Amino acid sequence: VTAARAGVVYLVGAGPGDPGLMTLRAAELIASANVVLHDRLIPPGALGEARQDAELIDVGKRPGSAQMSQGEIERLMVERARAGRSVVRLKGGDPFVFGRGGEEAEALAAAAVPFEVVPGVTAGVAAPAYAGIPLTHRDDASAVAFVTAHEDPDKDGSLLLDWEALARFPGTLVLYMGVKRLPEVVERLVGAGRDAGEPAAAVERGTMAGQRRPRPALRLPRSCSPGRWRRVARRSVGSSGAPSTGCGWSSPGRVPRQAAWRRRCARSAPRSSSCRRSGSCPGSTRPRFATWCSPSTRTRSSA
Amino acid sequence: VTAARAGVVYLVGAGPGDPGLMTLRAAELIASANVVLHDRLIPPGALGEARQDAELIDVGKRPGSAQMSQGEIERLMVERARAGRSVVRLKGGDPFVFGRGGEEAEALAAAAVPFEVVPGVTAGVAAPAYAGIPLTHRDDASAVAFVTAHEDPDKDGSLLLDWEALARFPGTLVLYMGVKRLPEVVERLVGAGRDAGEPAAAVERGTMAGQRRPRPALRLPRSCSPGRWRRVARRSVGSSGAPSTGCGWSSPGRVPRQAAWRRRCARSAPRSSSCRRSGSCPGSTRPRFATWCSPSTRTRSSA
Repeated sequence: VTAARAGVVYLVGAGPGDPGLMTLRAAELIASANVVLHDRLIPPGALGEARQDAELIDVGKRPGSAQMSQGEIERLMVERARAGRSVVRLKGGDPFVFGRGGEEAEALAAAAVPFEVVPGVTAGVAAPAYAGIPLTHRDDASAVAFVTAHEDPDKDGSLLLDWEALARFPGTLVLYMGVKRLPEVVERLVGAGRDAGEPAAAVERGTMAGQRRPRPALRLPRSCSPGRWRRVARRSVGSSGAPSTGCGWSSPGRVPRQAAWRRRCARSAPRSSSCRRSGSCPGSTRPRFATWCSPSTRTRSSA
Repeated sequence: VTAARAGVVYLVGAGPGDPGLMTLRAAELIASANVVLHDRLIPPGALGEARQDAELIDVGKRPGSAQMSQGEIERLMVERARAGRSVVRLKGGDPFVFGRGGEEAEALAAAAVPFEVVPGVTAGVAAPAYAGIPLTHRDDASAVAFVTAHEDPDKDGSLLLDWEALARFPGTLVLYMGVKRLPEVVERLVGAGRDAGEPAAAVERGTMAGQRRPRPALRLPRSCSPGRWRRVARRSVGSSGAPSTGCGWSSPGRVPRQAAWRRRCARSAPRSSSCRRSGSCPGSTRPRFATWCSPSTRTRSSA
């Protein structure tokens, strides 16, 4: 075990929600850090092994009420590290895949604060896997793309993506977005030339106890139908066919994953003193959502 | 802890090479399974906690001498599960991202063998992170694509990818390939319209002790230059500019990651009895390579 070191900031991915998908390195850093600055949406029990004397700060942004600005988060990291503390910046998923970890790393580099990046399992990989969908396949998908279709709150709310280029992408498309965006995204993709008949699926609250398919969406044929095993991506290289608009469907009965998760989670995610101290018990009683195809619908976690 | 269950096959991602990037779930399954069928390239010490009575089978394919066919691997999984064993199929990276996990899951489904998928950190995410490169950035990269440019041994050796579509992809491109492929890939991408002046980098043996930049490659301007922090992906949405041809550069001195890794690895990756039993000590003394931009160059691991 290599403990968190004084004066260093660790940009740590906490994975997509299932506590079992946290990395060994993430766990050892959380258990040894002086300070943990965490997102609102981290796995249940993620902070349960933090030091009793650790400072746990919820810097999570809430829709409509930005609790702490990005600049404030960055200043806090720099300040604590300069004070000789070991600092874990715990983020959902992977820090460098739609995690704003790039900005935070730049801020740390600019301040000459040493940092380390600990990658995590991103929801775009994990949610389809839990739904039984391989993102690539030797026969028909030698590429996969991850695209954020979340609106940038600083922008005007429209989705400024190159839809034609995305529609042409020769592989599986995975879109991170709120479920509200689904009709617009599908319409734009199909409008830009993506085959409307392509297999597609959507997953809400990926890898979490409440993982489910959302309601069928406009012009997403065959999506969200009760799931059996099948492949999503079908586009052969060079064909004019089409891959899928990402996302996965549940495969109830096949993978007894959620039940197993519930059991483990119920044990590992008590409202521990460490998370009570911060005033936030991530995942224990707070509403959660998946980063993948779902933020507009929330549910209680299993704990 | 939820142990591996009898009669179930677990398709488990072991992550990109750094043992610290294995998931907690992967670790608990390896520690409880009756049978582990593992790739050749798994993290050092990955099997160190396996049961003393576990059957550990190296099913890894070696270049030029396919030790076990894909069909044989699938038959073995089915047979052991039907015999009431708990089976871990341990694969480098993530099982569903260029891992042939899709084929194995299909084979299990066809045989009515229950299975579970445990995602892992894929090298395309981790290697750039260890090199200090964010794959996405709020300002200029809202998408990232993973593409395999490994040749399919069943094909004629040429790279049958839709290069024009890939060149147009509006975000960061990450290519999984052998370093030998680099000149051809760059030539094809630039030939298809990708900006030859785009920042780019290549990483060998990503996340492993020997992670390094390879020699500069033909027409990969600015790649492989001694690293300082900078962003790879620069293409603004809708512009005709260009993102990068993936890969990362080392940032020596910035992230003291490799040294930390070496220390941890040296302790955690002994040639344990469990891996000796299988006749294979993954990562301890065997040559290793990264799945990301590097397979043709090999090195000894750190243990």
